[in-house]
Amino acid sequence: MSRFNFNTFFHRHVLFYKNCNKQIRRRYSVDNIKTLLSKQEISNNEITIRGWVKGVRQYKELTFLHLNDGSGPQHLQVIVPLTVSANKEITFGSCVEVKGKLIESIGQGQKVELVSDSIDIIGPCNNLEFPFKAGRRHPASYSRDILHLRPKTNFFSALLRIRNAASMAVHNFFQAEDFVFIHTPVLTSSDCEGACEMFIAQPLKSDLLTSSDSENETGTEKDGEPKYFFRQPSYLTVSGQLHLEVMTGAFTKVYNFGPAFRAENSIGSFHLSEFYMIEAELAFIESIEDLSTVMERLVKFTVQKTLDSCPEDVSLFQKFVATSKHKGILKNITECNYERMTYTDAINILKKSGEKFEYTPEWGCDLKKEHEMYLTKVVGDAPVFVTDYPAQLKPFYARRNNDGITVSALDLLVPGIGELCGSSLREERADVLESVMKKLNLLEQIPWYLELRKFGSCPHGGFGLGFERLLMATLGAESLKDVIPFPRWPRNCRT
Amino acid sequence: MSRFNFNTFFHRHVLFYKNCNKQIRRRYSVDNIKTLLSKQEISNNEITIRGWVKGVRQYKELTFLHLNDGSGPQHLQVIVPLTVSANKEITFGSCVEVKGKLIESIGQGQKVELVSDSIDIIGPCNNLEFPFKAGRRHPASYSRDILHLRPKTNFFSALLRIRNAASMAVHNFFQAEDFVFIHTPVLTSSDCEGACEMFIAQPLKSDLLTSSDSENETGTEKDGEPKYFFRQPSYLTVSGQLHLEVMTGAFTKVYNFGPAFRAENSIGSFHLSEFYMIEAELAFIESIEDLSTVMERLVKFTVQKTLDSCPEDVSLFQKFVATSKHKGILKNITECNYERMTYTDAINILKKSGEKFEYTPEWGCDLKKEHEMYLTKVVGDAPVFVTDYPAQLKPFYARRNNDGITVSALDLLVPGIGELCGSSLREERADVLESVMKKLNLLEQIPWYLELRKFGSCPHGGFGLGFERLLMATLGAESLKDVIPFPRWPRNCRT
Repeated sequence: MSRFNFNTFFHRHVLFYKNCNKQIRRRYSVDNIKTLLSKQEISNNEITIRGWVKGVRQYKELTFLHLNDGSGPQHLQVIVPLTVSANKEITFGSCVEVKGKLIESIGQGQKVELVSDSIDIIGPCNNLEFPFKAGRRHPASYSRDILHLRPKTNFFSALLRIRNAASMAVHNFFQAEDFVFIHTPVLTSSDCEGACEMFIAQPLKSDLLTSSDSENETGTEKDGEPKYFFRQPSYLTVSGQLHLEVMTGAFTKVYNFGPAFRAENSIGSFHLSEFYMIEAELAFIESIEDLSTVMERLVKFTVQKTLDSCPEDVSLFQKFVATSKHKGILKNITECNYERMTYTDAINILKKSGEKFEYTPEWGCDLKKEHEMYLTKVVGDAPVFVTDYPAQLKPFYARRNNDGITVSALDLLVPGIGELCGSSLREERADVLESVMKKLNLLEQIPWYLELRKFGSCPHGGFGLGFERLLMATLGAESLKDVIPFPRWPRNCRT
Repeated sequence: MSRFNFNTFFHRHVLFYKNCNKQIRRRYSVDNIKTLLSKQEISNNEITIRGWVKGVRQYKELTFLHLNDGSGPQHLQVIVPLTVSANKEITFGSCVEVKGKLIESIGQGQKVELVSDSIDIIGPCNNLEFPFKAGRRHPASYSRDILHLRPKTNFFSALLRIRNAASMAVHNFFQAEDFVFIHTPVLTSSDCEGACEMFIAQPLKSDLLTSSDSENETGTEKDGEPKYFFRQPSYLTVSGQLHLEVMTGAFTKVYNFGPAFRAENSIGSFHLSEFYMIEAELAFIESIEDLSTVMERLVKFTVQKTLDSCPEDVSLFQKFVATSKHKGILKNITECNYERMTYTDAINILKKSGEKFEYTPEWGCDLKKEHEMYLTKVVGDAPVFVTDYPAQLKPFYARRNNDGITVSALDLLVPGIGELCGSSLREERADVLESVMKKLNLLEQIPWYLELRKFGSCPHGGFGLGFERLLMATLGAESLKDVIPFPRWPRNCRT
């Protein structure tokens, strides 16, 4: 790095201006294994590759390494002559730099391999202490306890590439359809779902509460009243919907894609304390059929694009993780027209099913996981929309139907998962909304929400989709904890 | 919606399977104003447009409306004959549906306009109560108090489209460079920056704490000890860096783009309690020059792509918000090679500057905003990297230089903003890191972080960029609060 000399500064300043152009400096770039393996022609250039050792086979005169740098699921085979590897402890998991030349592979399984003329151990790996063992497939439940090293497993690095591709597919879908991406806030003073399953956020330093009070504009806060950083209790969002609805006062289509939180005591496969939601909100939409069309297209597009983007990564899950039924289910998710049935019909189907459910299905009661699973089974292991739920089962904002007892809400159920999306038209009629909010004491908590209906309001609706559930459905994974980089659930937030 | 009949269900089930194909159902779509205005040919079809009234001019026989649906900054001019608008209260801010035919515009300012043969008021707007007034440009500070209606202003809807474009530009940059997008967690048990400026998260329902204890696997928790949902205190992340570093044990390049939090009592233009960070981490990178190249390219690409994607939206800010110097600054950001100087040189420049600073510059002290502003001024109102800070000014993870007193850290300063990015090589040497962590009592808090250096570790480095600061620099906006949909700052989290 050039040392900056103050005395010559103003001279250089002039040079600097002459230097102002669109030219870009030396670009930092490294060879990666994915590109190497896809090369059509083999050049005679010396190549440098850095990566992690995924396999070591030792022969008399040669060592065969499998090297991976995260760029793709395929390893690069490296052949290291004894003269080069002598006195070097090349172990499973160690990080190495190899130099050498690409040749056409004689063996099976790869087109090219690298013959190494130099190898450096960048970071050794003590195989006695390293919790993952060479050549072994560790159960997902084992890896979950070692979050900070889990990406080093083939499965989890595949998952992270798949998750990357799926995330981009979601943005691609919405951007191509002219939706505007909105960062809805994590910190909020409202409880969107009304279920009180929220985390409250307070500053770690309690003097921030004091200073917050002392600078209070009103100056009327009394002693003994609770103190808050934000002058009122603030929570971690359970859904960005109310904030997306703000946007439907100015935009026709908006979406978000960010973290949401639930403080509930669930440790099962289908729940996380922190998870990712994709939410969309559409102005001027007046039927749940139209809503369901958007949801169905989003799901199909995202799943198909993910499968197409990472076929090898996905196949790892299909071979070793998913059940035998999963391929058929995936075909139904990507190809079938999704069935629709009303909640009332769904209850009737469950009642007449003859199945022994733990919870007896009754009109007015929530559908449990066992019921959802049965409904997806009965339509042929395929996704199904359930529509028009009793008002008391859905949040206050769902639009009242004319029958006076149900609301224009629909859930999308998928095989193996249950509820993947929740959705509804929103109550846009100010008078109806006001009376509902009054009953629930919400007028004081979120007065701004009612006000949205007073200035240029319009019919609108939207949905929320659990991103991890979508990944779980795509891959046939056994738990949400296996498809998110750092899962959080009760008593588990160690990293 | 077809009613689901249980008796014919199994018959339909068969039909359903025959119906399994790639055909997609009726697609929900609406005309939007942006597409209409860009049409090359005018067809004779009846068109339906829904949107919000941004301007009303009343003449004897005709009403001229400006209509906007959020698809772009340009309004559609609608001509409503008296016979059509009679008895309808078309006010500024109201939401309407108009039907009619496109014609070539006779007037100036637009190529086409719509002659309406029908207009419906979807949502009225009482102009006495509506806080935004027709034809007036409200100061940004006024709009900040009305977050739930702010997107209805021309400025803020422009901002949201710009923010959308900038967000996508960021993803485009990283994806094209083979970085893997990682959702680093919001909830974490570590304090990455070591500054204790964190929010702590606890469940609202305190019985979740109790049940968490009673099911504690160890069963050894004593009465009187603090209780936590996650068995240990958990905070809102101040940075995803430590979690991104986990990924550099398996991937060469990763990035995140999500919310970060600071519980500090700052109400100024440059601070928010919740803001968006773009962070990237690169394995095998060994020089801060290489790091600075990636940062410089990211900034240039994102700013240029944003300017190119939304020229009309951006021009609104350039005309009415940015200072006269802003255009020159923007040119320097997108076109110049960014200068680099060491921290030591920066301090010397400041000392010899002859400027009267509020805080006297001294080696070993942090650069204040006034110092940062001076440094960008002295290089010609352009971005500048400051490198090699004293170790005590940077977090524990920054890599120690050979001089024993500085670290391989660099900040990118930009005109009008100050620090835009912070960056460093990370201490990859297990023994050096261990001794630093020991001194700071971090070994017990984040033992997993040290362990990353024990199994196939490698040199690596990365940076964090404040997304709102980048937007502020791009637009010449006066506060971070004006470039994020729902700003949160001390005493302010009302939505």
